[in-house]
Amino acid sequence: FFPEMAASLWKSLLQTTKERILQQRRASLYIDAHGYEEELIKKKLQQFAGGSINFSKEDSGIGILTLNNPKLMNAFTGTMMLELQERVTELENWKDGKGLIIHGAGNTFCSGSDLNAVKAISNSQDGMNMCMFMQNTLTRLMRLPLISVALVQGKAVGGGAELTTACDFRLMTPGSEIRFVHKHMGLVPGWGGAARLVRIVGSGAALRLLSGAAGVDPARALHLGLSEEMLSSSDETAALEEARAWLSQYTEGPANVIRAVKKVVTAGRELPVEAALRTEKDVFGTVWGGPANLQALVRRQRHK
Amino acid sequence: FFPEMAASLWKSLLQTTKERILQQRRASLYIDAHGYEEELIKKKLQQFAGGSINFSKEDSGIGILTLNNPKLMNAFTGTMMLELQERVTELENWKDGKGLIIHGAGNTFCSGSDLNAVKAISNSQDGMNMCMFMQNTLTRLMRLPLISVALVQGKAVGGGAELTTACDFRLMTPGSEIRFVHKHMGLVPGWGGAARLVRIVGSGAALRLLSGAAGVDPARALHLGLSEEMLSSSDETAALEEARAWLSQYTEGPANVIRAVKKVVTAGRELPVEAALRTEKDVFGTVWGGPANLQALVRRQRHK
Amino acid sequence: FFPEMAASLWKSLLQTTKERILQQRRASLYIDAHGYEEELIKKKLQQFAGGSINFSKEDSGIGILTLNNPKLMNAFTGTMMLELQERVTELENWKDGKGLIIHGAGNTFCSGSDLNAVKAISNSQDGMNMCMFMQNTLTRLMRLPLISVALVQGKAVGGGAELTTACDFRLMTPGSEIRFVHKHMGLVPGWGGAARLVRIVGSGAALRLLSGAAGVDPARALHLGLSEEMLSSSDETAALEEARAWLSQYTEGPANVIRAVKKVVTAGRELPVEAALRTEKDVFGTVWGGPANLQALVRRQRHK
Repeated sequence: FFPEMAASLWKSLLQTTKERILQQRRASLYIDAHGYEEELIKKKLQQFAGGSINFSKEDSGIGILTLNNPKLMNAFTGTMMLELQERVTELENWKDGKGLIIHGAGNTFCSGSDLNAVKAISNSQDGMNMCMFMQNTLTRLMRLPLISVALVQGKAVGGGAELTTACDFRLMTPGSEIRFVHKHMGLVPGWGGAARLVRIVGSGAALRLLSGAAGVDPARALHLGLSEEMLSSSDETAALEEARAWLSQYTEGPANVIRAVKKVVTAGRELPVEAALRTEKDVFGTVWGGPANLQALVRRQRHK
Repeated sequence: FFPEMAASLWKSLLQTTKERILQQRRASLYIDAHGYEEELIKKKLQQFAGGSINFSKEDSGIGILTLNNPKLMNAFTGTMMLELQERVTELENWKDGKGLIIHGAGNTFCSGSDLNAVKAISNSQDGMNMCMFMQNTLTRLMRLPLISVALVQGKAVGGGAELTTACDFRLMTPGSEIRFVHKHMGLVPGWGGAARLVRIVGSGAALRLLSGAAGVDPARALHLGLSEEMLSSSDETAALEEARAWLSQYTEGPANVIRAVKKVVTAGRELPVEAALRTEKDVFGTVWGGPANLQALVRRQRHK
Repeated sequence: FFPEMAASLWKSLLQTTKERILQQRRASLYIDAHGYEEELIKKKLQQFAGGSINFSKEDSGIGILTLNNPKLMNAFTGTMMLELQERVTELENWKDGKGLIIHGAGNTFCSGSDLNAVKAISNSQDGMNMCMFMQNTLTRLMRLPLISVALVQGKAVGGGAELTTACDFRLMTPGSEIRFVHKHMGLVPGWGGAARLVRIVGSGAALRLLSGAAGVDPARALHLGLSEEMLSSSDETAALEEARAWLSQYTEGPANVIRAVKKVVTAGRELPVEAALRTEKDVFGTVWGGPANLQALVRRQRHK
């Protein structure tokens, strides 16, 4: 073992860590300059413990993220917010990931924030710091280079409804409901749910959903373009299996190609047309002449 | 009555006036720097008198704006354009307002510009000044923090069709029609109707509506997403009552919350995603921990 | 013939040429500053000859662009890419043009790139140069001030599917298919197909089409908003006739008015709302008080 090698390894490790931090910064919306006090809000969130966010990677390249706080309908405690951030970092570093399913434990999706945490951070500055924390995490989630699905069983209410909009797709089980209930709580979305909902269903439908605060059932969601599909199973395991099969249609193939597809669509969704076109060209450059492309050319040749 | 108090009151009054002017500037698209000659075009418009724009506020927080020039199918005379600007200023200052219905007198919506006014301002510079005047007013209308509905009875033609696109929603009565007739007049929209129509129905449908210049009936409008609902009454009073009931679903609740909902949707509609997310967080900060929010938390606690 | 006149003519000719070059630059996405090597990629493309892009102008103001390489299902050879650029320049200079139909020879649309050309430019830098070349051409095509239709017979696959998204509308004949097959070739779109597809069908549907790589038949395309109409004829001549009739509904009228309509819709589609409104006002200024507008006013007067 040569000292040069150790030095070089160490340097490259530092480099990687630096790059990862930089990458998370770039994907984040808020930094100190926006008056965002991350350490302060993290300390406050730490005090409201309970539940967990579990994550498992499957060999197929699909990850399963489980919101786990069933006695409160999977409401987000402070520590669950902190854990979600960690899981998203893990997902950013999972280079073989192609898909993600987010679901809730105990046959329901998520009822938003735990009211105990909410009451303790009820001043405006704390509230905005909490929003910035959650918007940072959900923006990074939305921009992950993998195809994400919110599997909605039972209820997705308030912040839970907002979380579903950070996924590429929403699948709903029979009897389930998405409800932007904020108005009835004297609120509007703050985790980015309004900005993202406008992009999914258009501004007219978004205004009706937010100002009406009515529940949206699977048929209505399908009609509005809020959901992609009505699943047939209500049972937790069966629904998860159905969601996996649905997602597999889109994740089949080499990880770097699937991830490139998501990247060009993210660019198309977020950027003005000229910037989107330029990003598309750059992403194209990463797969053109790559192994999957060369193999496909050979296959084609043989077919002739 | 102390002189200090009078001085302070006077100062605050000045401040408020200044702020209002500034706010109108911010909401306006065109100022002098764009070559816009507001005083000049106002003087010209003043010469073409007739009709009126009536406005009444209801206790429910819904305002009714009536285009009133029935012998010309509610075409806009010059003075009606000036009055519309005043009504929009009034609406900007109505802090309890939650909803707005725009409709026409005499069972029809609006047939655009009065041809007499049109002919007198037929040179290109005057025409562009008139457009800038109307775009300023309609942009401020579109950005009002209340939920607006165009109640379309009879015909909404040309500039009348454009006016409907400055509202959040369009409701149509049986037999009514929205028609972007501009092509047949050798024109294109100039009051912002094209830019807004693209955002409502998409660019493909907008191109078909503008280049085809065909009338759109209620069923087709519903299919295109140009209208939200086909009302059942053709009678003026009954249709207005129906529109009021429809809108009430969305305006029920405290004014500051309803207005906050419209603000986050406006941000989502007009801004790039990152700016929209930041605005959403700021608007959230205005309702979080506010009276309606605290009351809702108490109500929830009691239910437990 | 006076020397002054010749000098002036010459000067104006130079001016026009300069303006045309400037205009093409403005409409182009990539110039040298983006690391784009146009001369280099043109030289490479020149080496892969075969097929042609034919163009004919009809008196109605509708142009017909034919992809002609039927033995390879109209795949783009290098020289066809070069010819497409020339045809687009011709279209930019056709001031009477109101509409355009793009179709393929031999009852099929286009199967993307010719694999021989592809294999010769398989390094990443060449691939990106080729993308920049095609994106420049297709962006100029998309921005043409005339109403464009892709008439899809047979198959529009890979780059062929991307080409259809550079048109305003897509019409499909029975049994035809649009297929973003890129994933199966280890690729993503690079000619701008992803950025434009997101704008046509929304980001969710675009992600499904690109990551699923499944063929879209006429009924599904209609449902997604990817196509406007299912034609009834499969025969080449009859289908072209049907497409012509469909397009004529939208191109009827004076060229400068139709072109102005397309310009305000392009602005609405590409620009943020305030910039779109300003462009609309400027385009309005070019038709207001113009010959078609004045004639329409006279016609109206007579009807009274």
